[in-house]
Amino acid sequence: MIEKSQPVLGSTNRKVDADGIQRFASVIGLKAEFEHQYRELHANVWPSVLKRIEQSNIRNYSIYTMIILGENYLFSYFEYIGSDFETDMALMANDPIVQKWWNETDKCQNKIINNQPHEHWSVMEKVFFQNIK
Amino acid sequence: MIEKSQPVLGSTNRKVDADGIQRFASVIGLKAEFEHQYRELHANVWPSVLKRIEQSNIRNYSIYTMIILGENYLFSYFEYIGSDFETDMALMANDPIVQKWWNETDKCQNKIINNQPHEHWSVMEKVFFQNIK
Repeated sequence: MIEKSQPVLGSTNRKVDADGIQRFASVIGLKAEFEHQYRELHANVWPSVLKRIEQSNIRNYSIYTMIILGENYLFSYFEYIGSDFETDMALMANDPIVQKWWNETDKCQNKIINNQPHEHWSVMEKVFFQNIK
Repeated sequence: MIEKSQPVLGSTNRKVDADGIQRFASVIGLKAEFEHQYRELHANVWPSVLKRIEQSNIRNYSIYTMIILGENYLFSYFEYIGSDFETDMALMANDPIVQKWWNETDKCQNKIINNQPHEHWSVMEKVFFQNIK
Protein backbone atom coordinates (compact mmCIF):
# COMPACT_ATOMS: atom_id res chain seq x y z
CA MET A 1 0.00 0.00 0.00
CA ILE A 2 1.26 3.45 -0.88
CA GLU A 3 1.78 5.95 1.95
CA LYS A 4 -0.65 8.71 0.94
CA SER A 5 1.48 11.58 2.16
CA GLN A 6 4.76 10.30 0.72
CA PRO A 7 6.29 13.07 -1.39
CA VAL A 8 7.50 12.25 -4.87
CA LEU A 9 10.34 14.65 -5.44
CA GLY A 10 11.57 15.38 -8.89
CA SER A 11 13.36 18.16 -10.68
CA THR A 12 10.09 20.06 -10.69
CA ASN A 13 9.51 19.86 -6.94
CA ARG A 14 12.23 21.99 -5.37
CA LYS A 15 12.00 24.62 -2.66
CA VAL A 16 13.91 27.12 -4.79
CA ASP A 17 13.27 26.75 -8.50
CA ALA A 18 15.98 26.64 -11.14
CA ASP A 19 15.54 30.39 -11.75
CA GLY A 20 16.44 31.14 -8.10
CA ILE A 21 12.88 32.10 -7.19
CA GLN A 22 10.80 30.56 -4.39
CA ARG A 23 7.15 30.20 -5.40
CA PHE A 24 4.45 30.18 -2.72
CA ALA A 25 0.82 29.21 -3.21
CA SER A 26 -1.48 29.34 -0.20
CA VAL A 27 -5.13 28.94 0.69
CA ILE A 28 -7.46 30.31 3.36
CA GLY A 29 -11.21 30.40 3.91
CA LEU A 30 -13.20 33.56 3.09
CA LYS A 31 -16.25 34.32 5.24
CA ALA A 32 -19.14 34.72 2.79
CA GLU A 33 -20.49 37.72 4.67
CA PHE A 34 -17.10 39.48 4.27
CA GLU A 35 -16.59 38.68 0.58
CA HIS A 36 -17.68 42.12 -0.59
CA GLN A 37 -15.45 43.87 1.94
CA TYR A 38 -12.47 41.69 1.01
CA ARG A 39 -12.92 42.50 -2.67
CA GLU A 40 -13.18 46.21 -1.93
CA LEU A 41 -10.04 46.16 0.21
CA HIS A 42 -8.12 44.38 -2.56
CA ALA A 43 -9.32 46.61 -5.35
CA ASN A 44 -7.61 49.44 -3.45
CA VAL A 45 -4.81 48.05 -1.32
CA TRP A 46 -3.19 50.72 0.85
CA PRO A 47 -0.02 52.06 -0.83
CA SER A 48 2.08 51.53 2.33
CA VAL A 49 1.14 47.86 2.32
CA LEU A 50 2.13 47.48 -1.34
CA LYS A 51 5.42 49.25 -0.59
CA ARG A 52 6.16 46.91 2.32
CA ILE A 53 5.40 43.85 0.14
CA GLU A 54 7.89 45.16 -2.41
CA GLN A 55 10.53 45.86 0.26
CA SER A 56 10.07 42.31 1.55
CA ASN A 57 11.13 40.99 -1.86
CA ILE A 58 7.75 39.64 -2.93
CA ARG A 59 6.90 39.85 -6.62
CA ASN A 60 4.14 38.76 -9.00
CA TYR A 61 1.56 38.50 -6.25
CA SER A 62 -2.04 37.60 -7.08
CA ILE A 63 -5.06 36.44 -5.08
CA TYR A 64 -8.05 34.50 -6.42
CA THR A 65 -11.41 33.45 -5.04
CA MET A 66 -13.46 30.30 -5.55
CA ILE A 67 -16.39 28.46 -4.00
CA ILE A 68 -15.76 24.75 -3.33
CA LEU A 69 -18.54 22.59 -1.91
CA GLY A 70 -20.44 25.70 -0.86
CA GLU A 71 -17.50 27.29 0.99
CA ASN A 72 -15.63 30.41 -0.16
CA TYR A 73 -11.85 30.25 -0.38
CA LEU A 74 -8.98 32.55 -1.26
CA PHE A 75 -5.86 31.37 -3.08
CA SER A 76 -2.68 33.36 -3.28
CA TYR A 77 0.41 33.02 -5.44
CA PHE A 78 3.62 35.01 -5.09
CA GLU A 79 7.30 34.80 -5.86
CA TYR A 80 10.02 35.48 -3.29
CA ILE A 81 13.21 36.89 -4.82
CA GLY A 82 15.16 37.64 -1.63
CA SER A 83 17.63 35.49 0.27
CA ASP A 84 16.21 35.57 3.83
CA PHE A 85 12.51 34.76 3.77
CA GLU A 86 12.02 34.66 7.55
CA THR A 87 13.58 38.09 8.11
CA ASP A 88 11.64 39.62 5.21
CA MET A 89 8.39 38.19 6.57
CA ALA A 90 9.22 39.42 10.10
CA LEU A 91 9.78 42.93 8.71
CA MET A 92 6.33 42.71 7.19
CA ALA A 93 4.71 41.37 10.38
CA ASN A 94 6.32 44.12 12.49
CA ASP A 95 5.17 46.97 10.24
CA PRO A 96 2.37 48.89 12.04
CA ILE A 97 0.50 49.64 8.78
CA VAL A 98 0.64 45.98 7.74
CA GLN A 99 -0.68 45.07 11.18
CA LYS A 100 -3.63 47.44 10.65
CA TRP A 101 -4.18 45.97 7.17
CA TRP A 102 -4.11 42.41 8.51
CA ASN A 103 -6.58 43.46 11.19
CA GLU A 104 -8.99 44.31 8.34
CA THR A 105 -8.29 41.21 6.25
CA ASP A 106 -8.16 38.74 9.19
CA LYS A 107 -11.79 39.60 9.92
CA CYS A 108 -12.71 38.31 6.45
CA GLN A 109 -10.81 35.03 6.67
CA ASN A 110 -11.23 31.59 8.22
CA LYS A 111 -8.01 29.63 8.79
CA ILE A 112 -7.96 26.14 7.35
CA ILE A 113 -7.48 23.51 10.01
CA ASN A 114 -4.30 21.58 9.29
CA ASN A 115 -1.21 20.39 11.10
CA GLN A 116 0.54 23.78 10.96
CA PRO A 117 -1.23 25.68 13.76
CA HIS A 118 1.13 28.69 13.48
CA GLU A 119 0.17 29.38 9.88
CA HIS A 120 -2.46 31.93 8.91
CA TRP A 121 -2.64 31.21 5.17
CA SER A 122 -1.94 27.50 4.60
CA VAL A 123 1.06 27.02 2.33
CA MET A 124 0.53 24.33 -0.29
CA GLU A 125 3.07 21.84 -1.53
CA LYS A 126 4.40 22.34 -5.05
CA VAL A 127 4.28 19.26 -7.29
CA PHE A 128 5.17 20.81 -10.64
CA PHE A 129 7.00 23.80 -12.08
CA GLN A 130 7.87 24.68 -15.64
CA ASN A 131 9.28 27.92 -16.87
CA ILE A 132 10.64 28.95 -20.21
CA LYS A 133 12.53 32.18 -20.60
CA MET B 1 -28.13 43.51 1.81
CA ILE B 2 -25.05 42.96 -0.29
CA GLU B 3 -25.31 40.70 -3.32
CA LYS B 4 -22.77 38.00 -2.44
CA SER B 5 -21.53 37.42 -5.98
CA GLN B 6 -21.28 41.08 -6.96
CA PRO B 7 -17.79 41.72 -8.28
CA VAL B 8 -15.83 44.68 -6.96
CA LEU B 9 -13.60 45.58 -9.84
CA GLY B 10 -10.55 47.71 -9.37
CA SER B 11 -7.29 48.31 -11.13
CA THR B 12 -6.10 45.00 -9.71
CA ASN B 13 -8.94 42.89 -11.10
CA ARG B 14 -8.46 42.96 -14.86
CA LYS B 15 -8.55 40.13 -17.36
CA VAL B 16 -5.19 41.17 -18.83
CA ASP B 17 -2.85 42.71 -16.28
CA ALA B 18 -0.95 45.95 -16.80
CA ASP B 19 2.09 43.97 -17.96
CA GLY B 20 0.09 42.44 -20.85
CA ILE B 21 -0.03 38.99 -19.25
CA GLN B 22 -3.18 37.00 -18.45
CA ARG B 23 -2.85 35.12 -15.16
CA PHE B 24 -4.88 31.95 -14.60
CA ALA B 25 -5.34 30.16 -11.30
CA SER B 26 -7.47 27.01 -11.26
CA VAL B 27 -8.52 24.25 -8.92
CA ILE B 28 -9.56 20.61 -9.30
CA GLY B 29 -10.01 17.66 -6.96
CA LEU B 30 -7.30 14.98 -6.64
CA LYS B 31 -8.40 11.43 -5.94
CA ALA B 32 -6.48 10.37 -2.81
CA GLU B 33 -5.78 6.94 -4.28
CA PHE B 34 -4.13 8.57 -7.32
CA GLU B 35 -2.04 11.12 -5.40
CA HIS B 36 1.16 9.12 -5.68
CA GLN B 37 0.66 8.54 -9.42
CA TYR B 38 -0.09 12.23 -10.01
CA ARG B 39 3.08 13.26 -8.19
CA GLU B 40 5.15 10.77 -10.16
CA LEU B 41 3.71 11.97 -13.49
CA HIS B 42 4.51 15.59 -12.58
CA ALA B 43 8.02 14.89 -11.36
CA ASN B 44 8.72 13.72 -14.92
CA VAL B 45 6.31 15.39 -17.33
CA TRP B 46 6.69 14.08 -20.88
CA PRO B 47 8.96 16.41 -22.91
CA SER B 48 6.42 16.63 -25.77
CA VAL B 49 3.82 17.91 -23.33
CA LEU B 50 6.20 20.56 -21.99
CA LYS B 51 7.03 21.57 -25.57
CA ARG B 52 3.35 21.93 -26.46
CA ILE B 53 2.72 24.05 -23.33
CA GLU B 54 5.55 26.34 -24.41
CA GLN B 55 4.24 26.55 -27.99
CA SER B 56 0.81 27.47 -26.64
CA ASN B 57 2.35 30.54 -24.99
CA ILE B 58 2.05 29.38 -21.40
CA ARG B 59 4.79 30.47 -19.00
CA ASN B 60 5.63 30.25 -15.29
CA TYR B 61 3.38 27.24 -14.75
CA SER B 62 3.20 25.60 -11.33
CA ILE B 63 0.85 23.12 -9.64
CA TYR B 64 0.33 22.67 -5.89
CA THR B 65 -1.52 20.21 -3.71
CA MET B 66 -3.45 20.69 -0.47
CA ILE B 67 -5.95 18.85 1.71
CA ILE B 68 -9.00 20.91 2.70
CA LEU B 69 -11.64 19.41 5.01
CA GLY B 70 -10.27 15.94 4.30
CA GLU B 71 -10.38 16.28 0.50
CA ASN B 72 -7.30 16.51 -1.74
CA TYR B 73 -7.09 19.35 -4.24
CA LEU B 74 -4.74 20.58 -6.94
CA PHE B 75 -4.15 24.25 -7.66
CA SER B 76 -2.49 25.54 -10.77
CA TYR B 77 -1.08 28.93 -11.69
CA PHE B 78 0.17 29.96 -15.12
CA GLU B 79 0.71 33.02 -17.25
CA TYR B 80 -0.53 33.34 -20.83
CA ILE B 81 1.66 35.58 -22.99
CA GLY B 82 0.00 35.01 -26.38
CA SER B 83 -2.78 36.96 -28.08
CA ASP B 84 -5.31 34.21 -28.92
CA PHE B 85 -5.96 32.07 -25.87
CA GLU B 86 -8.76 29.97 -27.42
CA THR B 87 -6.68 28.99 -30.44
CA ASP B 88 -3.62 28.21 -28.33
CA MET B 89 -5.72 26.03 -26.02
CA ALA B 90 -7.33 24.28 -29.01
CA LEU B 91 -3.86 23.50 -30.38
CA MET B 92 -3.06 21.90 -27.04
CA ALA B 93 -6.33 19.95 -26.88
CA ASN B 94 -5.84 18.62 -30.43
CA ASP B 95 -2.29 17.41 -29.83
CA PRO B 96 -2.33 13.57 -29.67
CA ILE B 97 0.46 13.43 -27.05
CA VAL B 98 -1.37 15.94 -24.86
CA GLN B 99 -4.52 13.84 -25.24
CA LYS B 100 -2.58 10.79 -24.01
CA TRP B 101 -1.17 12.84 -21.13
CA TRP B 102 -4.61 14.11 -20.14
CA ASN B 103 -5.87 10.54 -20.27
CA GLU B 104 -3.34 9.78 -17.51
CA THR B 105 -4.00 12.90 -15.44
CA ASP B 106 -7.81 12.88 -15.84
CA LYS B 107 -7.88 9.53 -14.06
CA CYS B 108 -6.33 11.22 -11.01
CA GLN B 109 -8.72 14.17 -10.88
CA ASN B 110 -12.26 14.93 -9.71
CA LYS B 111 -13.91 17.93 -11.35
CA ILE B 112 -15.33 20.50 -8.97
CA ILE B 113 -19.05 20.95 -9.41
CA ASN B 114 -19.78 24.53 -10.38
CA ASN B 115 -21.80 26.47 -12.94
CA GLN B 116 -19.24 25.98 -15.74
CA PRO B 117 -19.97 22.38 -16.83
CA HIS B 118 -17.57 22.60 -19.82
CA GLU B 119 -14.55 23.30 -17.62
CA HIS B 120 -12.18 20.58 -16.48
CA TRP B 121 -10.04 22.62 -14.08
CA SER B 122 -12.21 25.35 -12.50
CA VAL B 123 -10.81 28.79 -13.25
CA MET B 124 -10.86 31.09 -10.23
CA GLU B 125 -11.64 34.79 -10.21
CA LYS B 126 -8.73 37.14 -9.60
CA VAL B 127 -9.30 39.73 -6.87
CA PHE B 128 -5.80 41.18 -6.53
CA PHE B 129 -2.61 41.57 -8.53
CA GLN B 130 0.57 43.43 -7.76
CA ASN B 131 3.76 43.33 -9.69
CA ILE B 132 6.93 45.35 -9.43
CA LYS B 133 9.54 45.17 -12.13
